Amino acid sequence: MTQSLPPLRLGIAGLGTVGRGVVRIVQTHGALIAARAGRRVEIVAVSARSQKDRGIDLSAYAFEADPVALAQRPDIDVFVEVMGGHEGAAKAATEAAIASGKDVVTANKALLAHHGQALALAAEAKGRVIRFEAAVAGGIPVIKALTEGLAGNAMKRVMGVMNGTCNYILTRMEATGQGYNVLFDECAKLGYLEADPNLDVGGIDAGHKLSLLSSIAFGTQVAFDAVELQGIQNILLDDIRMAKDLGYRIKLLGVTQMTGRGLEQRMTPCLVPADSPLGQLQGGTNMVVLEGDSVGQIVMRGPGAGEGPTASAVMGDVIDLARGTRVSTFGQPASTLTKAIPAKAQAPSAWYLRMTLLDKPGALAKIATCLGEAGVSIDQMRQNGHEGIHAPVLIVTHKAAPADIADAVARFAGTGVLVGEPVALRIEEV
Amino acid sequence: MTQSLPPLRLGIAGLGTVGRGVVRIVQTHGALIAARAGRRVEIVAVSARSQKDRGIDLSAYAFEADPVALAQRPDIDVFVEVMGGHEGAAKAATEAAIASGKDVVTANKALLAHHGQALALAAEAKGRVIRFEAAVAGGIPVIKALTEGLAGNAMKRVMGVMNGTCNYILTRMEATGQGYNVLFDECAKLGYLEADPNLDVGGIDAGHKLSLLSSIAFGTQVAFDAVELQGIQNILLDDIRMAKDLGYRIKLLGVTQMTGRGLEQRMTPCLVPADSPLGQLQGGTNMVVLEGDSVGQIVMRGPGAGEGPTASAVMGDVIDLARGTRVSTFGQPASTLTKAIPAKAQAPSAWYLRMTLLDKPGALAKIATCLGEAGVSIDQMRQNGHEGIHAPVLIVTHKAAPADIADAVARFAGTGVLVGEPVALRIEEV
Repeated sequence: MTQSLPPLRLGIAGLGTVGRGVVRIVQTHGALIAARAGRRVEIVAVSARSQKDRGIDLSAYAFEADPVALAQRPDIDVFVEVMGGHEGAAKAATEAAIASGKDVVTANKALLAHHGQALALAAEAKGRVIRFEAAVAGGIPVIKALTEGLAGNAMKRVMGVMNGTCNYILTRMEATGQGYNVLFDECAKLGYLEADPNLDVGGIDAGHKLSLLSSIAFGTQVAFDAVELQGIQNILLDDIRMAKDLGYRIKLLGVTQMTGRGLEQRMTPCLVPADSPLGQLQGGTNMVVLEGDSVGQIVMRGPGAGEGPTASAVMGDVIDLARGTRVSTFGQPASTLTKAIPAKAQAPSAWYLRMTLLDKPGALAKIATCLGEAGVSIDQMRQNGHEGIHAPVLIVTHKAAPADIADAVARFAGTGVLVGEPVALRIEEV
Repeated sequence: MTQSLPPLRLGIAGLGTVGRGVVRIVQTHGALIAARAGRRVEIVAVSARSQKDRGIDLSAYAFEADPVALAQRPDIDVFVEVMGGHEGAAKAATEAAIASGKDVVTANKALLAHHGQALALAAEAKGRVIRFEAAVAGGIPVIKALTEGLAGNAMKRVMGVMNGTCNYILTRMEATGQGYNVLFDECAKLGYLEADPNLDVGGIDAGHKLSLLSSIAFGTQVAFDAVELQGIQNILLDDIRMAKDLGYRIKLLGVTQMTGRGLEQRMTPCLVPADSPLGQLQGGTNMVVLEGDSVGQIVMRGPGAGEGPTASAVMGDVIDLARGTRVSTFGQPASTLTKAIPAKAQAPSAWYLRMTLLDKPGALAKIATCLGEAGVSIDQMRQNGHEGIHAPVLIVTHKAAPADIADAVARFAGTGVLVGEPVALRIEEV
């Protein structure tokens, strides 16, 4: 059986961490992969910015300085795009690969978040597919679980902690008592940050991933622009501690759900119960929670980045193609994906509000009045000692619409008792 | 695109909980499934012991009293076997389906654990496949994750808590302080037990599942007979409490790993760290831990049984077949699966030993001497008060081979200070 099919021929664009990992797996596990896929998987050509020594033997492969030229080679079947970046070379090469009839395996979340629909349509027109397991949650096979394993479910909600750097910072803030800025600098030194750190700490990278999950969960065209984004830059040690006292942990949590009001997508710091699987997630590990109408809740946890895990995800896609598995890019034909209608209002929830008040008589009463006027009722209120003239105040609300919270916060400004900006974080039921 | 392919036609054998669930999904989500699969999925005929009212409308389907007749109908493409039982009708009907050129989707772990290799070979000879996502860990798409998503990995170890009833009993023992027998009776009343309860509490059902995971993880023929099985019947409340004091919880844990000594498969009660994902698993939920050489550790958690979750898994397989995905039954051609060489000796580990000693001077010294003679060194020893003349003793050993533990336990018998049988539980590093 294994003899009857010709090898599947790869062209790999990008020889950074992920590209090297893919080369290593192909070189190490040739026999294993051939047994599983029913045919050999071979690398024919690679492309990178330079031919410097990368600690792997590339001598058997053709080298293309231009990834577009690689994408167009007639002797490759699958274009593996592990360059990164959502414009420029990665986009041009992916388009070229599709135009010349290649399937594409990519780890590029930004590219698909921005151009996924157009690329999927182009691939479909050529009878090709784009697979992107490595683009979301690293080594966790979540795209496959959602698109294939749970395909009999109407999905209700998908949640995820999908940026390891943010989770590392938040976890370390609690563990070490160090502030955000110190740990940000530590991450920079450790090489945990993207060239533009805002991609990580601003929630953009995780938002890209969430927008792809939305599409495959709900059959909608990728709508990254409609993701509500909030980074972790304003989380203080005080927030971490107060959340902990309340039995919660703060996570940069992505939530996407289809509601009567439309598609709700957000990637924001949230409080989750400390003893929930999401609350217990430590360090750089990722977690995705999938909720379907038949299956109930599935939780998947694993490494979200790194050479081995990301290359594992790329190879899962490659072996699918070698086996002849051909699932539409976003789980159904791109032409049938509906345009996402972004929810005008996000779901109500309990909220964590932290602010600093001037130490004046009646200050707290003024804040409580604002909340009442905005229709927000208070579940808990704590004033934790004084810092000179400033009193840090923590309020946990009952379930309230985000618009009402925003209304209350706007009213706070008029009281004259507020120091700095209040922080409002959603308490997510998980 | 969706118009071009004819519908995929199902014959469903068994209208118990799972069968009803499958019918409900097909009836409720016809359009969703057609969009995802690129073609309609239809039920053509069903089979059950009787035509009693099951709360679902079966009027559009042909009824076959004999599942073999259903399996042989020329108007079905896929035989969905959700009857259960590893001999008799389920086996005959599955064989008939394969012989008449059908693909098979089954939830039947016992059938595959006993006859998986023969059935897979028969299917292969006909160019057909058997898919069995629903047979292992209910709604968790673990077969897919392992066979496809992680196909680029050499697997190192797979672990799982895969019998909800056992985990429910162990969890409730800790939560309520009730003993095993009380909770066993509660499970019987709640309908949580198989007709032969030993399938659950004896670890057999979970052992079936483990043997299937071994096959797809390591490319070996299913070897259920080589699974070391130990049930939870001898776990006392004392064990639960003492484990907890040590920072552990007791789980009926399956472990399969390929070692230099051969394939090691066991389904036994083990101590796992209370704060690990496995240790935190409560109630009837299942968890599977997949460890690969590239990906590291992936943890999947979800409902292990019930109508919705199991039917979700069946439908995942059905939609794969509708899409044209055809993965070999055990992830590679059955003819290439190697014969499993069972490990002669299982891996060493730390051990939890609990025994009751006569309250005689020197009793503990005699036990300690036995351990020393067997080459087992002691990490911790606790004697928790006296119960009349009997003293319960807890010993935690340093890492020791199972043979040495067995040797020590055999020596205990000769000391004359032992009351009843000692209990030895492995402490698993997770």
